[in-house]
Amino acid sequence: MVTKLTIEYDGSDFAGWARQPRERTVQEELERALTTILGQLGSDGEPLRLTVAGRTDRGVHAWAQVASYAHEAVDPLRLNALLPDDVAVLSSEPAPAGFDARRHARSRTYCYRVLARSTRSVCERQRAYWWTHPLERAALEECARSLQGSHDFTAFTPTETEHRHFMREVLSAEWREDGDLLEFWIEADTFMRHMNRVLVGTMLEVASGHRTVEQFLELLEGRPRARAGRTAPAHGLALASVSYGERGT
Amino acid sequence: MVTKLTIEYDGSDFAGWARQPRERTVQEELERALTTILGQLGSDGEPLRLTVAGRTDRGVHAWAQVASYAHEAVDPLRLNALLPDDVAVLSSEPAPAGFDARRHARSRTYCYRVLARSTRSVCERQRAYWWTHPLERAALEECARSLQGSHDFTAFTPTETEHRHFMREVLSAEWREDGDLLEFWIEADTFMRHMNRVLVGTMLEVASGHRTVEQFLELLEGRPRARAGRTAPAHGLALASVSYGERGT
Repeated sequence: MVTKLTIEYDGSDFAGWARQPRERTVQEELERALTTILGQLGSDGEPLRLTVAGRTDRGVHAWAQVASYAHEAVDPLRLNALLPDDVAVLSSEPAPAGFDARRHARSRTYCYRVLARSTRSVCERQRAYWWTHPLERAALEECARSLQGSHDFTAFTPTETEHRHFMREVLSAEWREDGDLLEFWIEADTFMRHMNRVLVGTMLEVASGHRTVEQFLELLEGRPRARAGRTAPAHGLALASVSYGERGT
Repeated sequence: MVTKLTIEYDGSDFAGWARQPRERTVQEELERALTTILGQLGSDGEPLRLTVAGRTDRGVHAWAQVASYAHEAVDPLRLNALLPDDVAVLSSEPAPAGFDARRHARSRTYCYRVLARSTRSVCERQRAYWWTHPLERAALEECARSLQGSHDFTAFTPTETEHRHFMREVLSAEWREDGDLLEFWIEADTFMRHMNRVLVGTMLEVASGHRTVEQFLELLEGRPRARAGRTAPAHGLALASVSYGERGT
């Protein structure tokens, strides 16, 4: 028996998704609430553990994260009553036998929000990166277009990494504009650690005139991390959604 | 010399706009930052004091509050550097002699946000009122339409009040829908204490089937406060904008 959870959280006060000793994590909050209701063991006799589609880092938000566990579904209202107010279960549904939120995910979609203006914003302070320098928006769009397809993203993840394969397939990537708010939407099969934040940090350097679009394009051919730009801060990033094939939804 | 400030704040941790002893208020934060830069006295030789367009209550937000003071304008960046992160000055501009943010305001526009769904939302938890019961949206719209024009809003403000006149002119009032999010937008010449929150609380009772639209219409003819509904919570409400005539921009 497997359950699929869809989860929203404000990453501001979490050390990310994954359990870590002496840190407050989303995984631990959820597993604690689930075991309070369901007991310590999953249906396979192992301790109840969540498998997650996208392991978000410290400070990164999620609008519709997906996780699975081997036990029966629980009413989200009961779960939410046990959860702190910065994490909420949006839905909890029975999944096909063997469903795995990570392995069966076809793609993840992330959104990085940039507030491009001279005065800071109170409403956006915890969910958009405030950028005060002028940005050439056509350059942002050109960079985003170039991301589509398969590329070697070695330049966009820390040198010390657990990753062994650096090719990723980007299904779509675009900047959307709403006044001062610029949103970078990207969908890919999987992402590497910090990949979106280094992509955004580097694109912002291009759009500020500190690099050329051509230099950006070269980075997609497997350059070392040091050649790419700064890692944009975590609070601008959110895991927007996860998509599954027919079996998983 | 008069300056007009446009201000954004997250009301969550404020005891409202107006100065009060032993409370954290927006007015005090701003006046402290201004006097740090400008000195204790305004251009008229009196202590620097802000005049505000809409005195918001504890927990109410503002997206574009307007205030004025009798002294020169200061770079918003310098002010914001002295302000805590839940209040920001969006603009600071010289105003015509005698400009008064309160008396010269032609109208105020407020927005009350309701999240109408069964599961709570993390992102919206501090800026929308979570309402889990089914709502008849046509009833909300009918109530809003009836608000246009001049009415006696005695039923929509606390019985113990400083107000002496209870007629207000509503220039526009409507519910806007974006999925689960319902926004009540209302523009009027001036508002009474709690008026928007009692209006929303009462409309939600109509839309939940606990009162009729006809009963709501009767309330607009000057009924006692006890006849109207509950006061909706402060965190759903924001002062959206203030409009001035030509002299005040």
